[in-house]
Amino acid sequence: MIRILYLLVKPESMSHEQFRKECVVHFQMSAGMPGLHKYEVRLVAGNPTDTHVPYLDVGRIDAIGECWFASEEQYQVYMESDIRKAWFEHGKYFIGQLKPFVTEELV
Amino acid sequence: MIRILYLLVKPESMSHEQFRKECVVHFQMSAGMPGLHKYEVRLVAGNPTDTHVPYLDVGRIDAIGECWFASEEQYQVYMESDIRKAWFEHGKYFIGQLKPFVTEELV
Repeated sequence: MIRILYLLVKPESMSHEQFRKECVVHFQMSAGMPGLHKYEVRLVAGNPTDTHVPYLDVGRIDAIGECWFASEEQYQVYMESDIRKAWFEHGKYFIGQLKPFVTEELV
Repeated sequence: MIRILYLLVKPESMSHEQFRKECVVHFQMSAGMPGLHKYEVRLVAGNPTDTHVPYLDVGRIDAIGECWFASEEQYQVYMESDIRKAWFEHGKYFIGQLKPFVTEELV
């Protein structure tokens, strides 16, 4: 399984309320997305700083998303699909900045 | 369900290989942790910068962890447990910097 986690920052001009609605729309648009095994988006609701190790400040993050792909082939199906391209257009509207991490299973 | 996602940066003095091993140890130590519903830790294997929206640079992140708690009560059980305190001591050894996000379900 290929997994890509995303940190999302909303556009400065967009209200938190509007951004929240757009995250829901983005989730709804993900249904039936060719090649996409699963999509998840969650709002950042808290930023505890009382960490037991030195705190890392990465600036304000508004939401965290994640995409699952069953295989490299499915990822290609996803990348080539017109529906995915339309999904990305919606992404361009409500995502101000984005940081993707491709993650790797350890255990 | 309470979910807290963590960005982990390894100590500068620790090799990637050692950090990887410690992530596995940390996962193994999480088994049977009082109050903890689920724990996941994944290495960051890739940092694609060809994003369809402006790229957000948060510096090097070495791993991403996440904790699930079934309820606030279970979170308190977790926080008060001696096993969790020992787990955090191991965290102090292999985590150089940490950024927690409490996340909120949207749909």
